[in-house]
Amino acid sequence: MLRSHTCGQLRSSHIGQTVTLCGWVDKSRDHGGTMFIDLRDRYGKTQVVVNPDSGEQALEVAKELRGEDVVLMEGIVSPRLEGKDNSKLPTGEIEIRASRVEVLNASKTPPFFPNQQETPGEDLRLKHRYIDLRRQTMQQTLVLRSKIIKLMRDYFAENDFIDVETPILGRSTPEGARDYLVPSRVHWGQFFALPQSPQLYKQILMVAGYDRYIQVARCFRDEDLRADRQPEFTQLDMEMSFVDADDVMGMIDGLMSKLAKELLNIDLPASLPRMTYDDAVRRFGSDAPDLRFGMEIVDCSDFAKQSEFRVFRGAVDAGGFVRGIKVDKRAEEFSRKRIDELTEFVKHDFGAKGLAWFRVEPDGSLWSPISKNVEPAVLEGFKSQFAAEPGDLLLLLADTWEVTCKGLNGLRRRLGAELKLYDPAEMHFSWVVEFPMFEEDAEEKRWVAMHHPFTAPRPQDLPSLKEAPHQCRAQAYDLIVNGYEAGGGTIRIHDSQTQQIVFDLLGMDEETAQDRFGFLLNALGYGAPPHGGIALGIDRVVMLFAGLDNIRDCIAFPKTQKAMDLMTEAPGAVDKKQLHELHIEIETPPAKA
Amino acid sequence: MLRSHTCGQLRSSHIGQTVTLCGWVDKSRDHGGTMFIDLRDRYGKTQVVVNPDSGEQALEVAKELRGEDVVLMEGIVSPRLEGKDNSKLPTGEIEIRASRVEVLNASKTPPFFPNQQETPGEDLRLKHRYIDLRRQTMQQTLVLRSKIIKLMRDYFAENDFIDVETPILGRSTPEGARDYLVPSRVHWGQFFALPQSPQLYKQILMVAGYDRYIQVARCFRDEDLRADRQPEFTQLDMEMSFVDADDVMGMIDGLMSKLAKELLNIDLPASLPRMTYDDAVRRFGSDAPDLRFGMEIVDCSDFAKQSEFRVFRGAVDAGGFVRGIKVDKRAEEFSRKRIDELTEFVKHDFGAKGLAWFRVEPDGSLWSPISKNVEPAVLEGFKSQFAAEPGDLLLLLADTWEVTCKGLNGLRRRLGAELKLYDPAEMHFSWVVEFPMFEEDAEEKRWVAMHHPFTAPRPQDLPSLKEAPHQCRAQAYDLIVNGYEAGGGTIRIHDSQTQQIVFDLLGMDEETAQDRFGFLLNALGYGAPPHGGIALGIDRVVMLFAGLDNIRDCIAFPKTQKAMDLMTEAPGAVDKKQLHELHIEIETPPAKA
Repeated sequence: MLRSHTCGQLRSSHIGQTVTLCGWVDKSRDHGGTMFIDLRDRYGKTQVVVNPDSGEQALEVAKELRGEDVVLMEGIVSPRLEGKDNSKLPTGEIEIRASRVEVLNASKTPPFFPNQQETPGEDLRLKHRYIDLRRQTMQQTLVLRSKIIKLMRDYFAENDFIDVETPILGRSTPEGARDYLVPSRVHWGQFFALPQSPQLYKQILMVAGYDRYIQVARCFRDEDLRADRQPEFTQLDMEMSFVDADDVMGMIDGLMSKLAKELLNIDLPASLPRMTYDDAVRRFGSDAPDLRFGMEIVDCSDFAKQSEFRVFRGAVDAGGFVRGIKVDKRAEEFSRKRIDELTEFVKHDFGAKGLAWFRVEPDGSLWSPISKNVEPAVLEGFKSQFAAEPGDLLLLLADTWEVTCKGLNGLRRRLGAELKLYDPAEMHFSWVVEFPMFEEDAEEKRWVAMHHPFTAPRPQDLPSLKEAPHQCRAQAYDLIVNGYEAGGGTIRIHDSQTQQIVFDLLGMDEETAQDRFGFLLNALGYGAPPHGGIALGIDRVVMLFAGLDNIRDCIAFPKTQKAMDLMTEAPGAVDKKQLHELHIEIETPPAKA
Repeated sequence: MLRSHTCGQLRSSHIGQTVTLCGWVDKSRDHGGTMFIDLRDRYGKTQVVVNPDSGEQALEVAKELRGEDVVLMEGIVSPRLEGKDNSKLPTGEIEIRASRVEVLNASKTPPFFPNQQETPGEDLRLKHRYIDLRRQTMQQTLVLRSKIIKLMRDYFAENDFIDVETPILGRSTPEGARDYLVPSRVHWGQFFALPQSPQLYKQILMVAGYDRYIQVARCFRDEDLRADRQPEFTQLDMEMSFVDADDVMGMIDGLMSKLAKELLNIDLPASLPRMTYDDAVRRFGSDAPDLRFGMEIVDCSDFAKQSEFRVFRGAVDAGGFVRGIKVDKRAEEFSRKRIDELTEFVKHDFGAKGLAWFRVEPDGSLWSPISKNVEPAVLEGFKSQFAAEPGDLLLLLADTWEVTCKGLNGLRRRLGAELKLYDPAEMHFSWVVEFPMFEEDAEEKRWVAMHHPFTAPRPQDLPSLKEAPHQCRAQAYDLIVNGYEAGGGTIRIHDSQTQQIVFDLLGMDEETAQDRFGFLLNALGYGAPPHGGIALGIDRVVMLFAGLDNIRDCIAFPKTQKAMDLMTEAPGAVDKKQLHELHIEIETPPAKA
């Protein structure tokens, strides 16, 4: 190699050695004719001193160096001058007294510098990703990502899982999200689809007796992008045979323990805490509750319906609920303005009709602009229901079940952050289990699978699957980290009859099911073992462990929210000839109005 | 888990324990009312005995079992009866005396049985891949594949490489093979392309300072398929900064040593042997020579041109060559019929005009139907050139350089196999280095890059790059295993000026180059380090280590040679609505004649 050591390697034990370093000029200072150069690579920074002793030529070259030039420097490892040690730098005890300075490749002035204080705008960063990826935080995140994936793979290998690659060029299935399509050249008018997940392949692998499968799999969804979604994303995909939900969760408990120990040096409980879906929604308004803090939802509907106040009574009479959360002892921090903002927030973001609030006065009474409209007995009921004490603030929604859930979940998360109710460096892992099998598509008036159509119901719910699908609970489990769904899985249906019953409920008759999933139904007929698995969103897991909040900062070459790669300018136009070979044409765009 | 042990786990040390096994019925025999069931899973087979002691119900269930049923069996681990041990089976010392037999999922009669002697036709296997993947050889191969990839990843992690995922949805570049395209929904008339390799991204990662990158990457080429090609394939992709060719080869030498030691228990030399491209082609007619045996090409042109025999003289006069190979001491195994077959082979497969041959008689003379046409001095010259001895057979082509290379390479490989000149279990690793930078596209009369347009010339050839491109040799290296190219790599150009010179030679002016590879040229301007890397074909590496000759047997879900997945029936038709959302239409197929 051109270098003898990396820029992060040298210590005082190396003093006296002649070394060669290669790297980027991070900083360069002329100190009375002596050049101090900070040389940088992925492993660290080392100070190189070039002075008249280095030779005239070396000094001349050094004086012309500019930030981001790539250089090779040879010299002797020397102690720093008395009092000049830099304890912030692992190499801070030494410096290199250069005898040779060679520019390997000069750099033009970059659009921004990787070591600058202020982070440039995201578009500029993505366009010049090769500069952006030099920033220390980007390098740390991608190193962390590589490490997390390695830990995952090692863990599953230790547990006898086989890593199997499944196809990227697959078959389009109309269930689920929108597919990315790939026209076939060989088969006129036919298309491959990029996989939304390796779900069917991993089930096939279980039918084929592979017993324990794992893959770090690329998946694709052609959906409009939210902040934490990408057109292509990576999931840790696993599947096991002859297991129940406890076994799969247990395997992931072990993985999370290992990650938490290795990366954060914390000990997780052997079994992560579990909560049913019904409890999660009732207590936190969400199936992915942030359990780093309390502030549980309190249901006051039983008292509210006794009131004549139309906001409360009306909501309950219309089949809705009056539910709320309590801010402990910090009512004084809530000005009218702040409460108005929160009101606007729940109205705008969650469609709530409004936000009712009460301050608990020193005498224990509930005060609010509306408190005079509410009967004292009802207020007393609220107060006892909340176990409210002086200084508390109660925030209530009177609305449908869904709006109270979403609104209070949103409010709770916002206040949790604003009031610093948890340590942002802390991580909380838990399971939400026993999801409903189905939810109703209100518009189309039909059942849709809450996880996916291959999810098995709990054994005790199997008999009522046809008659009472809404009551059936699935053998499903989501891994929740800090209020994010980090992964989700289910035990799968392993017999073709149950699978067809579920397809029927989802509105797929036998012919349609056979057409779409025939190979799976066939496979289930030839000796399919009981099996189940899970998929973890790796981009998101990395984001959580890195303490970041932008998924694009956890991916080397992400797409923008308009699904573009700004660096390569993909997608792009292609030759007519290419399209012709694929037997496709571009639709004429509609005339502009 | 439903089981207490796997079907490969129990030994005589477990005797007396009550265990539960799950698996597939591999074989079932009724032996005078006692049922002997071989239960199979990925880990092995275990014999289970069900007799009247097992209970009436268990025996009844056992009697109805059929091959591939999935069952759970509980019982006591017992020694086999005296003399009934099966030493071929790791579990052969014990059997389970069942107390419970439960069918977890019955199987229909499969189209073929995984344990049947005869391998079914490949179409049937691919259509019912879930059965086919139960065959022991398929399971062994996929376990080996998982192991090889794990060993690779571990090796590179130990050497400080970072695993970075690069995009699958990329940009179409007209260089190289045909791209698979993916229409963009968001950007009307624009397309993503699936990557043929992560080449540009890994170079960008070097520019970004990642220093050592590794990825097990999926790559795609929409080309007509040969036996060992797939539309999507997997490569071990790596790149390093501040290195020369020796460093990259050294890193792979270490990897191959590790694989050979772990998988075959053989010690490879610390540095694998190297041969220049020119030597390889001259001595073996191929840039991927099979070095498991000798039979080098001998050039007799200098003697042939002294002959009046028109076949020899004419070839040399026309700028061609007379070159051949020698079969040592086994001329007697070559009947006229066999030689006729070889003649047909070189004519049909390599376009040779014919095959000249000579048998070395006991008296040392060369005999052939044509020997009377060739002057004795010329024959003597051939003999000495070949160091031929009685019983040898000489096979000669008189043709262009290319035809003699291809024809003799083909002949040599065929004879090496037919004459068993090597142990098929042996593996031979070597490097071919110093490839030409360019080859001429004879049809289009232009230079094309022999590896790819980012390959750096040897430093000593840089000055003559523009003037004598045909003489320039690249810093390129191919890893050759048993005559297959297992991988190839190069040191890359790291300055934009040299890169533009190469683009120019390839017929890309600055505007075109900027349009196609602008982001790379830009990146090279902002401090690109010297760098290089390699990609190994994982499917092929697995094939070689598994001793197989069909790449499809090394992939869990391969495509056929018509680029179809027979199991899922991909590619398939899609809804008009889907196409409309992507702004594309299917071209009307031409009317059938």
